[in-house]
This record gives sequence, structure tokens and C-alpha cells, in this order.
Amino acid sequence: MKPFFELLATCPDTGARAGVIHTDHGDIPTPNFMPVGTQATVKTLNAEQLAALGTDVMLSNTYHLYLRPGTGLINQAGGIHRFMGWTRPVLTDSGGFQVYSLSDLNKIREEGVEFRSHLDGSKHVLSPEDVVNAQAEIGADIIMPLDECMPWPCEKSYAEDSTARTSRWARRCLDTRGGVFEHHDYRQFLFGIVQGSTYEDLRRQSVAELVDMDFPGYSIGGLAVGEPKQQMLDLTELTAGLLPKEKPRYLMGVGFPEDLIRCVQRGVDMFDCVMPTRNARKGTLFTREGRLVIKNASYAEDFDAVDEQCGCPTCKNHSRAYLRHLLHVKELLGMQLATLHNLYFYLDLMRGLRKAILEGRFPEHRDAFFRDYRMATD
Amino acid sequence: MKPFFELLATCPDTGARAGVIHTDHGDIPTPNFMPVGTQATVKTLNAEQLAALGTDVMLSNTYHLYLRPGTGLINQAGGIHRFMGWTRPVLTDSGGFQVYSLSDLNKIREEGVEFRSHLDGSKHVLSPEDVVNAQAEIGADIIMPLDECMPWPCEKSYAEDSTARTSRWARRCLDTRGGVFEHHDYRQFLFGIVQGSTYEDLRRQSVAELVDMDFPGYSIGGLAVGEPKQQMLDLTELTAGLLPKEKPRYLMGVGFPEDLIRCVQRGVDMFDCVMPTRNARKGTLFTREGRLVIKNASYAEDFDAVDEQCGCPTCKNHSRAYLRHLLHVKELLGMQLATLHNLYFYLDLMRGLRKAILEGRFPEHRDAFFRDYRMATD
Repeated sequence: MKPFFELLATCPDTGARAGVIHTDHGDIPTPNFMPVGTQATVKTLNAEQLAALGTDVMLSNTYHLYLRPGTGLINQAGGIHRFMGWTRPVLTDSGGFQVYSLSDLNKIREEGVEFRSHLDGSKHVLSPEDVVNAQAEIGADIIMPLDECMPWPCEKSYAEDSTARTSRWARRCLDTRGGVFEHHDYRQFLFGIVQGSTYEDLRRQSVAELVDMDFPGYSIGGLAVGEPKQQMLDLTELTAGLLPKEKPRYLMGVGFPEDLIRCVQRGVDMFDCVMPTRNARKGTLFTREGRLVIKNASYAEDFDAVDEQCGCPTCKNHSRAYLRHLLHVKELLGMQLATLHNLYFYLDLMRGLRKAILEGRFPEHRDAFFRDYRMATD
Repeated sequence: MKPFFELLATCPDTGARAGVIHTDHGDIPTPNFMPVGTQATVKTLNAEQLAALGTDVMLSNTYHLYLRPGTGLINQAGGIHRFMGWTRPVLTDSGGFQVYSLSDLNKIREEGVEFRSHLDGSKHVLSPEDVVNAQAEIGADIIMPLDECMPWPCEKSYAEDSTARTSRWARRCLDTRGGVFEHHDYRQFLFGIVQGSTYEDLRRQSVAELVDMDFPGYSIGGLAVGEPKQQMLDLTELTAGLLPKEKPRYLMGVGFPEDLIRCVQRGVDMFDCVMPTRNARKGTLFTREGRLVIKNASYAEDFDAVDEQCGCPTCKNHSRAYLRHLLHVKELLGMQLATLHNLYFYLDLMRGLRKAILEGRFPEHRDAFFRDYRMATD
């Protein structure tokens, strides 16, 4: 049997690397970006459209699926792939992030988290064991342990306690079903999530404790939560550098196109972010030159494609003027076409990075990108 | 050059007929159903999806396009096909129906209609000539003259005046650019619209006056506005029977699947209605057995397709449970998948009717449909 992860190439001048993750729903070439399908759908797109963009792996959110439609229903369907008609790999988060960010009155105890649903105020308790079992039912190929994503800034003493608890929770998650298990008729792999807030010693401690548990892969959590961009980059570099080379590394919730490149450079293999999809629905498009706010009046009579060189279905078939019209009159198709474009841009960006790494020209490729690209002010 | 319309077969026992309309954007096999793309998009679907369903011709609304994005912009784009990336035929209505139903303070004068926009209250005046010119700019293959769609019930004296005025407006529309003209680099065909409310003598008079003007095709307007279903059917039969056999007949704004069959039986060639698309967005699906309200709790754990025999992308890839989940949590994909199904159902229904007519078995085909089908109460 193939190993879970194969490292295929490493850039000699940076930390950038190319590899492939093997799952029972297919391969995930890395570096890669995971479109976010919160409620078992990447908003506005069907599974066929998502596949046609070249999506290799989709992320879905355990918190949302746990509340609606319920993990039991997805279990009955035979797992999320069958439930939503998506045949390629899926990754689910642990629900922890949403518990802290979305729900009311969450309480963190050693036993687990207690929270009230943001939908109806109903009370729920999720232990590390529950979180693994919920994700077993959902049936993603890659799953996450319960962790605490601390806010920024965070007192050192709180961060110490939280990081240690996240490690204890990781152990309990691992002990629930092991690092690799089968609940449906295919394997599911459990990652460890590195926390530690912005404290280098805590990041080191977190890595050491998790690596000791020997997870199939590692996530870098707790970043992109408000800290300065340079600090996010530095901590990513530090953390990735400490993680074992032979395991995949997933930086959670990052980010802008420029962030993906700078974090690939620092040794990250996997990303997820609502950035391309959420921005699309609001009319902000990503292009090789930077961001384009399509609702601006200047695009009203602009019959060019969003990006003439883009290979996405939107750019091939439609003009800026049409897209602006649709978003202006609040037609749902506008959101769909913008989502198609932004996701294609992100996925194509990752394909380009991977190819450059494999061909030994990552630094030139990165520099060429930044020459044309007008950065987001961050 | 091929004639605009070719009649290929007529059912010996009913008025049902099969034919083909030739336009410069392709052929329209008849009988056919036109999905409604009010604002230059069939809500939730892109042009590629619409074509993949087998849509032969799309309808768009002059009133909406006139207000946003403006017919001048569509003209600049080279017509609605290029503007929206749709290469097949398009039909536009005259805007008259929306003026009466949507706008505030509409006034009908011999010169034309005056109305206030439902969007911003701005005042507009549209003469019959303006309506033709606006549609020339939009560039649909088949266009409609300005008419008055009377409410039901309607006083005879008002109906007499209105029907006569609609005929005078039809003449002015015809005189504006002729029955066939080129504004962009392809032909546009102007239909006449039969009115007359529910008065047989006025219907007869309307047909006589319009046929005398020799339009390339005829629309049957002013029905399905609240009158009893049987009266709609009878008036459709009367009107269709009076219209010339060698011209296509378009029944405006009808209707349920059962209405399409009953009106094909009475000699109608073309239909349009928001029924499949609007119902889809609200979660009502049309099937061979009747209507299915997918949000019902009974479908929560139903992993069958909406209709196991249906060939639409939704039924091929997704379950009732998934569709219910999406609509329940208000995911836009739910509306897209439901729209795909309902439009496919309508289009497939029409394809089946046409094939049956061509093969000389329309009555049997109709009877088989009604055996399985639970009718809407109307």
C-alpha cells in the first residue's frame, strides 16, 4: 500500500515542497488549497462544478454538520461523499473554531467544550472523543482533533494552560479510534493541531508533544486570528520547520493569495480559507494583478473578461459587464460565476506553485507572481 | 433560405402539432418550453448549465432589462446573446405585462404606457415604437409588440377598447422596423399578440386584425391571469384554431405541466412560465407523479433521487435528503439543484410530447402521462 504522504521535491533555497497525499478517495497533490464547504456544499457550486475546477480536496465544518443535518444523518447516507455526491477527498475540522467564534456561552473544561448553538440556543457538550466520533460518522478522509484556537492577543499563562490542554485532548482523540481508522468502508486519518498562540516556546512545546504522538499529519492552528502578518509568517516558518518532513502540514484558515505563496515558501502543504468564496459572493475577484471590485461603476461597460488569461468558466464565457450586472441586480448567478473564478484562481495558483517546485524554479515563479501582483494592504 | 417555421406533423385526433422554428441562433423544435431569464439569467443557472439541460430557447424580460442594465448597454455588448454568453435563441416579451403588474402608477394612453419603476420610482414612457427599438437593442431572435394584458375579470367595454388599442399598437410596432429586421448581424422576428380578455368575439376580432397584418408568428396573451382553468383551455383552443397553421403559436405565461400538455393538445407550439424556476427556489419539485415538497420532514432521511427515472444532473448525483438539507439550511446550491431538476422536467416533458406527435401517438402519450400524474388542484 502507498504511504499516506509522499514528499516528491523540496526547493533547495526555501522551505517549499511538493508531495502527494494518498487517500481512499484519491490523491491530493501538495501544496494544495481546500475550498470550504461549510454545510456540505461550497456555496453556490455543485459537486460537478467543483470537480471541473480541479478541486482535489474539499473542507467541511463539523460544527455546522453536527447541528444540521446532524452527523447521524450523514452516517446513514454512508458518509459525506455519498451524502453530497462528491467523490474526491474531504477534510473536516474539529468544530472547535466555530464553537469559540460562532456559538454563545461556550465553556471550556478539561472534559471538553460546552456551547449553545448559534441557531437555536440549544446546549451541547462535545468531548475530544465525541469530536472524533462525529467526524467518523461524517466520514472525511482527514479529520481534526478537538483543540482550542486562542484569540489574539492572549495572556501567556492562559496560553500555557490552553496549549497543554490541547495536547491532552489530542491524546484522547488519538486514543479514541487511533490515528488511522475505518468507520465507513475507507480509511480516515487524524491530524494533530499545533497551538501555542504567538509564543515560540509554546509552539515548540506543542510540536514536541504532538510529534511524540505520531499523527499521520499536522495542522498549524491558532494563526491568522488578528496577529500581525509578519508574526503569522514567522510562526508558520518556525512551526513548519519543527514538524517532521515526512508528514503533511496544513496551515488552518490562511489566506490571501500572497499568504499562500509565502507560506508554501515556509514549508506548508495544505491550506483552507473562506477568502476566495466569501469575497466572490461580495463581488471581490482575485486576479494576477490583485483584487478587482467588480461592482465598481468602471466595469459597467467593460466587455473584457475578468482576466483574459484565466482558464475559468467565467472568464471563458462572460464579461466584467455581465458579472457586474448580475451582482448589481443581486442575481444568484453573479455569486456563482464569481465563486467559480476565485476558486479557479486559488487552485490554479497552487497548481503553478507545485509545478514550479517540482521543476526546481520556485523562487523565480514566486518573484514573477509578485511582480504583477498588487498586494492587499495587511 | 429555410422558412421561419416548418410544420412537420399534426395529430389527426387533436390539435397537437410538431414543427421547427429556424432562427439565426439555431432551431427551436416545437412544441417547446422557454425557461424565463428575467434579468438576462435564468436564476441560479449559468448559460452552460442551461444549454446542458437541452434548453432550445430562453425568454427574457424587456421591462427588467430596460431598467437594468439598460438596453443601451446590451446593445453595446452586441445583443443579449453576447452579453450573457448564451448562443441559442432568445425571445423577449414587450415589457407590457411587467408594466401593468410590477410598476406603480401606470397610465395607458393611445401614445403608449407611462409608468414608474418598481425599483426607484423613476418615470418612464414607452410607446409601441420604443418597445420595438428597445428589443432591437436587446437583440432577441423573437420579439413582442406592446400590448395590454387585461386583468380578469374585465368589463366588456374596457376589453373592447383595450383589444382595439392592442391591435393599433401592433400595427405601429410592425411599421417601426417591419416583421423581420436586422439591427445586430442577425434577424429578429416580431410576433403579434392576441388579446380580447375572456370574450370570444373579441378574441376573434383580435386574431382577424393581427392575421391581417401577417406577423411571422402569433402569441396568445391575456390568459392564465385568474380566469377558471377550463376557460383558459377553451379560449386557447378557440384562438389557436383561428390562427394560421403555417405560423408558430406562443401561449404566454402558461403553466403547470398538465397545462402544457392540454394546450399542446389545443395547438400551441411555444410556452414560457416562471412555474418551474420559481417553484424550485421554494422547494417544490415537479415529477412524473406530481409535485413534491422537498422540505417536508418525510424526505429528511430519504436517500433516493427526487425521481429515479429522471435524467437531470440533480437526480443523477444527489438524494432527496441532500436537497432537503440544502434548502433547509438556505444554501444557494439547493435552489440551483432544484431549478436544474424542474427545468429538465419541463424540457423533457416537451421533448416527449414532440416525439409522440411526430410518431403519431400523442393521445396515448398524453393518457399515459395523466395516469401517473397527481394533478395540481386548480
